[in-house]
Amino acid sequence: MPEDFPSVQGGGSLILAWQIRNKKVLIVGGGEVGSNPYLSDDSVLTGGQVAAGRILNVLNADAKVTVVSPRSGLNPEVAHRIEKGEVIYHDRLFEPSDLDNVDMVMTAVDDPDASTTIWKLCKERKIAANIADVPPECDFYFGSVHRDGPLQIMVSTNGNGPKLASIVRKQIAANLPENIGAAVQKVGMLRKKLRKVAPDAAEGPKRMGWMSRVCEQWSLEELVEMDEEDMDRLLGFYKPNTVPSFEKVRLGEIGDECAFDGSFGFYI
Amino acid sequence: MPEDFPSVQGGGSLILAWQIRNKKVLIVGGGEVGSNPYLSDDSVLTGGQVAAGRILNVLNADAKVTVVSPRSGLNPEVAHRIEKGEVIYHDRLFEPSDLDNVDMVMTAVDDPDASTTIWKLCKERKIAANIADVPPECDFYFGSVHRDGPLQIMVSTNGNGPKLASIVRKQIAANLPENIGAAVQKVGMLRKKLRKVAPDAAEGPKRMGWMSRVCEQWSLEELVEMDEEDMDRLLGFYKPNTVPSFEKVRLGEIGDECAFDGSFGFYI
Repeated sequence: MPEDFPSVQGGGSLILAWQIRNKKVLIVGGGEVGSNPYLSDDSVLTGGQVAAGRILNVLNADAKVTVVSPRSGLNPEVAHRIEKGEVIYHDRLFEPSDLDNVDMVMTAVDDPDASTTIWKLCKERKIAANIADVPPECDFYFGSVHRDGPLQIMVSTNGNGPKLASIVRKQIAANLPENIGAAVQKVGMLRKKLRKVAPDAAEGPKRMGWMSRVCEQWSLEELVEMDEEDMDRLLGFYKPNTVPSFEKVRLGEIGDECAFDGSFGFYI
Repeated sequence: MPEDFPSVQGGGSLILAWQIRNKKVLIVGGGEVGSNPYLSDDSVLTGGQVAAGRILNVLNADAKVTVVSPRSGLNPEVAHRIEKGEVIYHDRLFEPSDLDNVDMVMTAVDDPDASTTIWKLCKERKIAANIADVPPECDFYFGSVHRDGPLQIMVSTNGNGPKLASIVRKQIAANLPENIGAAVQKVGMLRKKLRKVAPDAAEGPKRMGWMSRVCEQWSLEELVEMDEEDMDRLLGFYKPNTVPSFEKVRLGEIGDECAFDGSFGFYI
């Protein structure tokens, strides 16, 4: 009897969380004048609006962003980013040397020939690129993303229905617990503290199992309410590998169990 | 009064739908023997299990996959993919020439030095790479992904809580309408037909607005139930830019409205 392995279900994308912290991202375009409409998500956008959206996406991922676009007719949001010094700005058209030391390129310019030239240069230099509205000239697409603090949820219909992606994203966001982002943040803090308390690499599986049980046994509301003192108390239970209730931790009614393996003094 | 633009909210990833259809992806590793545990999502995995998961991910996105790993101790799912001819296989350790013409590399090998060597070679050659369990040696991370036909939903906690990502993904999946994947597929078919009926690029915004209204005004159940005949009838309303109810389209009670601009004959 062969084992039952999942069968391949083609036609999807590889959905990834790209790491561009401190990476150099080049945005070409940002002007409103003379641009064709871009069809994106559930709205019809100008090239400048597309560029503004891309810029915010990559700034939210801590990239170092350079924008190349003539100042005349610049989208107001793009102009705002430039004014606040959030991006490096060159008031001119694209030049091939703009690609030097760049890790990723996105364009939204109303000139198909210029777009294709940029795409080809990127491919020669093996730079990941997205030419807005030209699917064959894209290494990656964007989806409809919900963000709540450290939590990111992305919905892609793989080009079948951008509007449905947006409907699904809004429905997901409406159904999420209100404080889920805060809960994720608190769990992240607890994980960091745990790594300090038990840094041994060999304890990875134990750390992971214990963290999982905390997430399963505590409600989201409790995870959100957990303060630093609670965390320190809770961590006293890592060694004996138990997970007390939030109430017990908060009320400090944890002496007996914790004293059991001598870790009682940990949270005093 | 300055316009109110969203402020930058750093610390996120750039969530992308990477396009690797027919691209060459190299997976290094797939063996179970002697590997340290990998901590992934909500479970503790062997290197072979990590490789098996990566292989399925990229096959689902229609990549051409090559696996390099000694046959001895090969993970059974990886062996199954090789047996079915779903991947190209080399029964040996990694060699630098494996990187020739490769677009993306993922490793899950129990040898930190070998991993780092592969990472460095990838960076020299500007190949996107993910070295399992070594965050600084990753251009991208994976999240917890729900798949339903052409619909993909990815949850990332940006490393704060893999278990919470998995809890959130399961909750999202449980709350989604049962037939959402089928609805996305039907909408994709309708879009393709619409592009044939009205191929003019200048009509992009009209096409988009009309498709959006269909998605808003019809229920998911109706979108799923829509058959080819319904689609052809419905498309008769694109020209006058109206969206009738599903009932009207299904029952064929659409003569009057459609005849109004002479497109009556379209769906006969």
